[in-house]
Amino acid sequence: MPNGAQALLRTLVDAGVTTCFTNPGTSEMHFVAALDTAPEMRAVLALFEGVATGAADGYARMADKPAATLLHLGSGLGNGLANLHNARKGKVPLVNIVGDHATYHVKYDAQLQSDIETVARNVSPNWVRTSRSTDELPRDAAEAVAAAKGPPGQVATLILPADVSWGDGAQPAPPPPPPQPPVASSDVVEAIARAVHGSGERAALLLGGRALREAPLVAAARIAAATGIKVYAECFPTRLERGAGLPALERIAYFAELASVQLAGLKHLILVDSKAPVSFFAYPGKESYLVPDGCEVHELAAPAQDVLGSLEALVEAVGAGGAQPARREASRPERPTGELTADKVCQAIGAVLPEGAIVSDEAVTSGLSLPTTTAGAPRHDWLTLTGGAIGQGLPVAVGAAVASPDRPVIALEGEGSSMYTIQSLWTMAREQLDVTAVIFNNRSYAILNIELERVGARAGGPKAKSQLDLSAPDLDLVQIAAGFGVPA
Amino acid sequence: MPNGAQALLRTLVDAGVTTCFTNPGTSEMHFVAALDTAPEMRAVLALFEGVATGAADGYARMADKPAATLLHLGSGLGNGLANLHNARKGKVPLVNIVGDHATYHVKYDAQLQSDIETVARNVSPNWVRTSRSTDELPRDAAEAVAAAKGPPGQVATLILPADVSWGDGAQPAPPPPPPQPPVASSDVVEAIARAVHGSGERAALLLGGRALREAPLVAAARIAAATGIKVYAECFPTRLERGAGLPALERIAYFAELASVQLAGLKHLILVDSKAPVSFFAYPGKESYLVPDGCEVHELAAPAQDVLGSLEALVEAVGAGGAQPARREASRPERPTGELTADKVCQAIGAVLPEGAIVSDEAVTSGLSLPTTTAGAPRHDWLTLTGGAIGQGLPVAVGAAVASPDRPVIALEGEGSSMYTIQSLWTMAREQLDVTAVIFNNRSYAILNIELERVGARAGGPKAKSQLDLSAPDLDLVQIAAGFGVPA
Repeated sequence: MPNGAQALLRTLVDAGVTTCFTNPGTSEMHFVAALDTAPEMRAVLALFEGVATGAADGYARMADKPAATLLHLGSGLGNGLANLHNARKGKVPLVNIVGDHATYHVKYDAQLQSDIETVARNVSPNWVRTSRSTDELPRDAAEAVAAAKGPPGQVATLILPADVSWGDGAQPAPPPPPPQPPVASSDVVEAIARAVHGSGERAALLLGGRALREAPLVAAARIAAATGIKVYAECFPTRLERGAGLPALERIAYFAELASVQLAGLKHLILVDSKAPVSFFAYPGKESYLVPDGCEVHELAAPAQDVLGSLEALVEAVGAGGAQPARREASRPERPTGELTADKVCQAIGAVLPEGAIVSDEAVTSGLSLPTTTAGAPRHDWLTLTGGAIGQGLPVAVGAAVASPDRPVIALEGEGSSMYTIQSLWTMAREQLDVTAVIFNNRSYAILNIELERVGARAGGPKAKSQLDLSAPDLDLVQIAAGFGVPA
Repeated sequence: MPNGAQALLRTLVDAGVTTCFTNPGTSEMHFVAALDTAPEMRAVLALFEGVATGAADGYARMADKPAATLLHLGSGLGNGLANLHNARKGKVPLVNIVGDHATYHVKYDAQLQSDIETVARNVSPNWVRTSRSTDELPRDAAEAVAAAKGPPGQVATLILPADVSWGDGAQPAPPPPPPQPPVASSDVVEAIARAVHGSGERAALLLGGRALREAPLVAAARIAAATGIKVYAECFPTRLERGAGLPALERIAYFAELASVQLAGLKHLILVDSKAPVSFFAYPGKESYLVPDGCEVHELAAPAQDVLGSLEALVEAVGAGGAQPARREASRPERPTGELTADKVCQAIGAVLPEGAIVSDEAVTSGLSLPTTTAGAPRHDWLTLTGGAIGQGLPVAVGAAVASPDRPVIALEGEGSSMYTIQSLWTMAREQLDVTAVIFNNRSYAILNIELERVGARAGGPKAKSQLDLSAPDLDLVQIAAGFGVPA
């Protein structure tokens, strides 16, 4: 009879979870020992938990199924929290396995004892469970995977006491049957069809989440071709399929001032697996809610619904079945020459981006021209900072490369952002992943120099400016990368 | 009239909080802008929040007063959580200032929105508050500092919405009067005096927290001289004053098997700002609670009490006022020669440790002989991993060096542990701190190779072993350090 950890691993594998990003400690040693009993499970070690959680996020974005993480008690979960936040906001399926003290050891309040469930609720508001016995563990694990998959995808956190893991006599549990997400009701579809077709009023589709893949993009483009409706993508897509041959669409801008211009005059905004746009931060005297007054917000498909089916129902309702979707022409910028600037790097990326590339984009201010310079490059996927917690780009690249070993992965990073999870480079080297990291070094938190003005802060003096300055000492990213085993 | 951020900074400074370890974002820009209005406040920038929180911990251990941190929403707090856990377990006073969205922006669930209070409760179970208005902010801040100071010291978390920070019309608040912690009652003192003096039964004092400074150590040593009682220190002291001329004492061992030997035969264990010893982790078939059967546990002083006053009352009660405390003789090991091994490094540290040094010890398995090799070195302070969350050593060294600019700081790190907060090196360079970091590189999570056996895990195969191995690629710590601006 397998022990708890062995039955847990078998249950995960049977549910399709075949990759685990790990940073284990003593309480996880039985899970680690059990890895050799589950040959289908690939365990990818990280030097820091934020790498493991971000990699699990990137993996699921590309594999369309969850990976597991293996984390060490509350402090390990804490170290992974920022990238779990990003996964939560991106509706990415992910299963945390967080080791804990043995159930009978908790009362002694040993050094590493802390309230893990309370931390976990920040990123797993709907599914946190501490497994109470070896018998129940496999069923708990199967339910965690099902909860993670959704739709919508979410972060499920299973807390695994050491004695539940080492106990004997567990039986693997089968995966529950997958849910059948509902298509939008005909009432909703008809109401939206009337709003976008023949009303003469400006309308737009706002696609997010799983609506940014080729099939729903083509459906939206048919609707646009038949009705003249505009199609937007949310500001920070989890995964956007784009490039030559795919329908083009505009992303809602990060700066609220620009987003307001995009949305001005709109009378109908139709949400498809997305939310009505709001400002990233609040600014004194400025609106947080960016939908213009007088604009009606419709929801065609909520994140828990059948996104593609709902869009296809709308295609039918507006008679767009025969419409030709507009597709982006192939085009690339010239290879730039002359002095190296951030814009020229963006141009160069557009000039050489390989077919099938996966781009993990956390270039922040240095990457502002990337959407333009890469728009007509060969087909690729674009993964963005879904939750705003910087330090995601390199780990997501790790996970994307594990999920898609035959595709080149490009990580575009600000130097400030890269510092939160720079340990990612070691896992890239250890796993020999096909990742090219481009780190833009402007020797400052450049976005904060902009934000310091935007929030209307009274003129910052030298101490304030110094808080945004990364120039003393300069980070030598070539040496840091080499130290982690990555040529730079 | 000052704005909220300016009044907050003035309140902190007036309460004695004159150092802030920061990693700000947009929601903290008004706090950053206000720094120039508070010349007494030193702001120390970190590239990662775990550095900021660990540095605030190290600072308070040496300064005996709290520092503040400045963190960016829930994800920034998450990144800082592991070292806040260590501070909590070490009863270290610390004030987190966690920026949040403007109060009216929360309902829009923008990208960085998350439940900050729930995360904070993990490390601040007794004091978390979201400041609700600019008017109330200064009083909230004064109460946060008072809560942090205790005794016992604790982590207080003040959540600062952006509009509360930028609002006008705040008045700084004065610090509340300090508490008068009570001395042990005469009943308790008399009962303990009877147990240790003349009962003929084996007894021991177990000192922790603030009882490990010179004055309480001398009091305990007098009691030992008069009664023959043994004196132990807790396993992971927050700050232990030791070396030549100070009373010597034995620390309770990390490995429960050894701790049980230390405590065998004991009939009375007297706690002074400490807890009855328990095993760090649970192990199948082994005891978690390490106090032997038949041993009575007494509490002379709880963490909220007057620790020194209570020990002095016991000195009186056992008639030890005239007893000479035993003090450690000066002695150093020879400077080692020959092949470089971890033990020889420990020996070398003992041979050259400078007078007044502050040692931040996270050497894990490589440092097992340090307590012996350094015992007779000139007087120094020893700071340890109070909460078991690795990645503390380098940040604590940063904070200790900021608090004690005239003293040399030595950080002793395992290479695995160093990887969680390696960004500390940059702050050391930026602030030109007197820190010498010694990183022991054994190319593995060596402690886990021991723990894998101790937990009785079934023989790990190659996948399990690979999870504990850091040799492919080797970390080149010389290059990494140089990349962060630190010669190595």
